[in-house]
Amino acid sequence: MNAREDAKEIGLAAVKSVVPDAAVRRYLEDRSYGGRVVVVAIGKAAWAMAQAASGVLGDRIERGIVITKDGHSDGEIDRFVVREASHPIPDERGIRATAEAIEMVRGLTEEDTVLFLVSGGGSALFEKPLPGITLDHVKDVTDQLLRAGADIVTVNAVRKRLSAVKAGRFALEVAPARVETVALSDVLGDRLDSIASGPAYPDQTTTDEVLEAVRRYKLKLPETLERSIREETPKELSNVESHVIGSVPVLCEAAREEAVRRGYSALVLTTFLEGEAREAGVFIAAIAREVRASGRPLSPPCAIVLGGETVVHVTGDGRGGRNQEMALSVALELEGPDRFAFLAIGSDGTDGPTDAAGGIVDGGSAKRIRAKGGNPRELLESNDSYAALGLSKDLIITGPTGTNVNDLALLLVE
Amino acid sequence: MNAREDAKEIGLAAVKSVVPDAAVRRYLEDRSYGGRVVVVAIGKAAWAMAQAASGVLGDRIERGIVITKDGHSDGEIDRFVVREASHPIPDERGIRATAEAIEMVRGLTEEDTVLFLVSGGGSALFEKPLPGITLDHVKDVTDQLLRAGADIVTVNAVRKRLSAVKAGRFALEVAPARVETVALSDVLGDRLDSIASGPAYPDQTTTDEVLEAVRRYKLKLPETLERSIREETPKELSNVESHVIGSVPVLCEAAREEAVRRGYSALVLTTFLEGEAREAGVFIAAIAREVRASGRPLSPPCAIVLGGETVVHVTGDGRGGRNQEMALSVALELEGPDRFAFLAIGSDGTDGPTDAAGGIVDGGSAKRIRAKGGNPRELLESNDSYAALGLSKDLIITGPTGTNVNDLALLLVE
Repeated sequence: MNAREDAKEIGLAAVKSVVPDAAVRRYLEDRSYGGRVVVVAIGKAAWAMAQAASGVLGDRIERGIVITKDGHSDGEIDRFVVREASHPIPDERGIRATAEAIEMVRGLTEEDTVLFLVSGGGSALFEKPLPGITLDHVKDVTDQLLRAGADIVTVNAVRKRLSAVKAGRFALEVAPARVETVALSDVLGDRLDSIASGPAYPDQTTTDEVLEAVRRYKLKLPETLERSIREETPKELSNVESHVIGSVPVLCEAAREEAVRRGYSALVLTTFLEGEAREAGVFIAAIAREVRASGRPLSPPCAIVLGGETVVHVTGDGRGGRNQEMALSVALELEGPDRFAFLAIGSDGTDGPTDAAGGIVDGGSAKRIRAKGGNPRELLESNDSYAALGLSKDLIITGPTGTNVNDLALLLVE
Repeated sequence: MNAREDAKEIGLAAVKSVVPDAAVRRYLEDRSYGGRVVVVAIGKAAWAMAQAASGVLGDRIERGIVITKDGHSDGEIDRFVVREASHPIPDERGIRATAEAIEMVRGLTEEDTVLFLVSGGGSALFEKPLPGITLDHVKDVTDQLLRAGADIVTVNAVRKRLSAVKAGRFALEVAPARVETVALSDVLGDRLDSIASGPAYPDQTTTDEVLEAVRRYKLKLPETLERSIREETPKELSNVESHVIGSVPVLCEAAREEAVRRGYSALVLTTFLEGEAREAGVFIAAIAREVRASGRPLSPPCAIVLGGETVVHVTGDGRGGRNQEMALSVALELEGPDRFAFLAIGSDGTDGPTDAAGGIVDGGSAKRIRAKGGNPRELLESNDSYAALGLSKDLIITGPTGTNVNDLALLLVE
């Protein structure tokens, strides 16, 4: 058993399992479709997801469309039209592409399936305002709400109601055919009604709530919008089915399974990791000490898996990222003890303005930094984790992975 | 089930179990002694521990001594002499009292027992420098080491060797009688060789290590001290037995057991909690979210117990303490959800410069603060957790508890 090697391989395997291509292939392997299959792929990973679906289903796909962000497609895919549009600010190209998608799902029967491949950015890219509403209206409402101090949940609840495809309404367009949502999510604790604003999922917000927000934030609305907002969204949809194939929990579960396969008992402690990166490192070190002292929550050899996204409040002028900073913090807290390793990486392969995805540290990391002339505590203080982990050869560099389901942190104790 | 009531009662019960009096009584209830019993009680809780021993053992105690900090004794105890001395800086009164204690354990046989009741502050109060060494020597060595940047572990390793009672040497004075150490510890992850500098526990440091520190920190030592430092400390002691009856792990375990008794599944997540108080709150909130989302690491109703001691880097001009700040941070993170409660208290009944021991919050705390005209986020930013939790009626005020085994944090999810 080698905690350091294992941590690295577990982390990379977990990320690999949520890369759009691998995730879509794994999902589709178990599925079979009776009637016709139409694919609508939206979001930043739409092209890769569509390409993977095409690879598995081939000519079982009758037709399909990719709607992705500018620069995020990589050529033609058989039987698909590929469209690029603006993100994060929606534009007319996105609206035209969405209209094409709606056209494509018309005339299907209840035997047929729309395979709806959804990834981050889908909300901006997949849009059709209700009649009489323009993108400028949507923008104005958003601005009013944000200026008045509304949170993003409220903003989305109001905005959904200006759309003919969000909040479950796309599923009504697809009916009587089935719509099978297959989603990659990059938002912590994301609910299916909020991924891409839930085009094919029953909406959970009520008209009363939304009108209450209109009053509280003193929104000034033209009559068309006022009317649209009052229109209730679908609360039940009998033709939808949803699967999250990539998300922080999926990433963490993949890490847990790989750890178990390698002989570690393993626990996903949280998929909601937040807060200051270095402080998360202190907390994780406190858990490592308990594992050693009492075998709680697991006896070694064991793996503690955490997912989420920390932040760094930069005060120094160094270079680094939240994952590297968390790893450096753990390295300082747990200097000395051997037979443990801690890895923290961004699933997208990037971490701050560096070429590293994150870092992997052990009880000797701080010493190795010093041996090369660095002061690990000072490097942490100046947010220079990239330099520190460079000295100790603790950087993990993967290059862009093509996925983005937040960060993975993994503590292994042998 | 009422998470808030339960959290409060679990917390108070756990603290009660590590109050010196209760802890000593519980310990002695199961013990019986054949020969003579002499009691040596040292530290800030010495008087209370001796009083409890006297209450249980009565005239089974032949004689005893209390050596405690000025102002920390509360009257005579039958068959005991009660001495007060200086703390944290040792003085001659402490040295004289220690000499009395040594006199008291002379002439015992292997049938006899010295019940050695140890609590925080014992290291300064129980001291007998080796021949030719003065308190000024000890102070000088300490100053040199601290100025040179040595850590507290190194300082203690060197200082122990200037003493005739530390580092297991008191046990040699007691031999052939047995010495039974019964300790309350206020240091995280405290080892038995470091509680009160381990008068009756085999010393783990070696002469080589200590000489290495002398070289590294360029200590200037008179010849007497140089000679003393080279003298190896006892590595094996056949007449000692040690029990920690109060400590963070004991506190946490008591909370866990009380939670289980009330129908919660329960886990001690760490007894090494450290770091910035509000960030610990963010982390604990991340764990609460996971409990709700997936039933990991435990399914509700459940209790997650943490012990240790966080810090607050004060930037505002408010009043509060680390436990109140942690609780306020959790209240902000977990605003809204009901059927959970979070408690954080100092086991000594104090938390920062306030009359509160800590706080207890729930999903409605932030709202209650606002209802009274407070802004919970701003109050946290200005380190004004006492005011915030005062508004929401979330302060816990116990008064001094008479014990000090760090802090307890407890998350209950119904």
